Amino acid sequence: MPTFRITLAYDGTDFVGWQRQATGVSIQGLLEDALGELDGRPVTVIGAGRTDAGVHALGQVASFSLDKSMAPDTVVRALNARLPVSVRVVAAAEAPGTFHARFGARMKTYRYRMWHGDVINPFERQYAWHLTGTLDVDRMAEAARVIEGRHDFAAFQAAGGTARTSEREVLSSCVDAQTGQVGQVGQVGRLVVYEVCGNGFLRHMVRNIVGTLVEIGRGRRPPGWIGEVLASRVREQAGPTAPAAGLFLVNVTYDAGAVAAES
Amino acid sequence: MPTFRITLAYDGTDFVGWQRQATGVSIQGLLEDALGELDGRPVTVIGAGRTDAGVHALGQVASFSLDKSMAPDTVVRALNARLPVSVRVVAAAEAPGTFHARFGARMKTYRYRMWHGDVINPFERQYAWHLTGTLDVDRMAEAARVIEGRHDFAAFQAAGGTARTSEREVLSSCVDAQTGQVGQVGQVGRLVVYEVCGNGFLRHMVRNIVGTLVEIGRGRRPPGWIGEVLASRVREQAGPTAPAAGLFLVNVTYDAGAVAAES
Repeated sequence: MPTFRITLAYDGTDFVGWQRQATGVSIQGLLEDALGELDGRPVTVIGAGRTDAGVHALGQVASFSLDKSMAPDTVVRALNARLPVSVRVVAAAEAPGTFHARFGARMKTYRYRMWHGDVINPFERQYAWHLTGTLDVDRMAEAARVIEGRHDFAAFQAAGGTARTSEREVLSSCVDAQTGQVGQVGQVGRLVVYEVCGNGFLRHMVRNIVGTLVEIGRGRRPPGWIGEVLASRVREQAGPTAPAAGLFLVNVTYDAGAVAAES
Repeated sequence: MPTFRITLAYDGTDFVGWQRQATGVSIQGLLEDALGELDGRPVTVIGAGRTDAGVHALGQVASFSLDKSMAPDTVVRALNARLPVSVRVVAAAEAPGTFHARFGARMKTYRYRMWHGDVINPFERQYAWHLTGTLDVDRMAEAARVIEGRHDFAAFQAAGGTARTSEREVLSSCVDAQTGQVGQVGQVGRLVVYEVCGNGFLRHMVRNIVGTLVEIGRGRRPPGWIGEVLASRVREQAGPTAPAAGLFLVNVTYDAGAVAAES
């Protein structure tokens, strides 16, 4: 009964999200179907982050156990042969039987991409939030730093969140700007990238932080406002939820002892 | 009766190509429909390059005349409001009444992207040709240089090509490698980029050159083989046609006198 840890990249555009739903195609469902076919019996797959519909992953981690013994390289090839090209297994390793991709996760990094300019690059339409008007990146960067540390993030938790506690630790929270052009000519757009690393995230937490940062970037609120929102612990105080398409689960880390060497 | 020159970027994935077809959505059709609505009468749009289904553009140029006079900025905004986000007008300028986006084009640059590695980055699946196995980029680069200059490119012309002559001048033809990862972890992939600039291109010419370069990169033929293919002027001598998804029309240049200043 070998246990595996796999790392996945996926374009979330066409999926209902990580988790199996009553209708629609989910990443978990695709994996469980493919593994069930391989192992000849139903397989349960645990994902480190339960990404929502439209959210992407560069380094999602998942765990599962098989009846059959199988080389990690074979797991990669067999899964990729059965999955759509929008979902790719990029690595697999055998893991201790106790390994659990969600409960064992120590740190996760999420990235949120915003396109700031009159005309969005059409190749970014499903991978960035298009914001017109002026956006002050320095103010957003200043505000982003305020939420670093251990806090009660209840103000940034979606209404339906089911977490036991809303206390989380954010190790780093940064906003950075890159310049880019739409195509090769014409109006220059600006890619604004928010990256946050923490020991766990509440439902919609990153997207609600981004919605709050954008209020500040647009000059509707001062940078210090995010501290007041945080302290209030009231969801209604924060900005709107940013769209799913700009969000990427970048990576997930585990204690060295919890995982075997990667294939 | 003002004449306009517009520059467009589009993700060609969901379209039947530039040109209006009996069925399916074309870029030309979308533009003509939007402009017809704006001008209150049918408008004909000429594109510099008639990109095929699935081919993308970063800097396509198109021309048309309107009955109404309109500021170039208004043309950009009004078209973008009517077009799907996968097609964006990035610039517009008034042009002399004699301006013709296709006949007036002096130079065009195309880029072809290949992903070389076991697992393709899922975000590249519609923007690169996925090639597994070994690909020798230095051999491809050497071969690419051979076709620079004025030649009869009949060997690289699609069967249905209708060009008056198959002589064309290629100013530069280069292959370059970049390294990249699939997601944040796991197998390293390699992006191989072919870029070609010339005074005109026959139907499927870039894709047939790429198919030929890949035969060389895979070691099936020596770099000098492309010179023999070129000299043969026989389509059957060249490699297969590379898939549409990797191809981008990067830009189109005109004589300075032929166009007014860009908006």
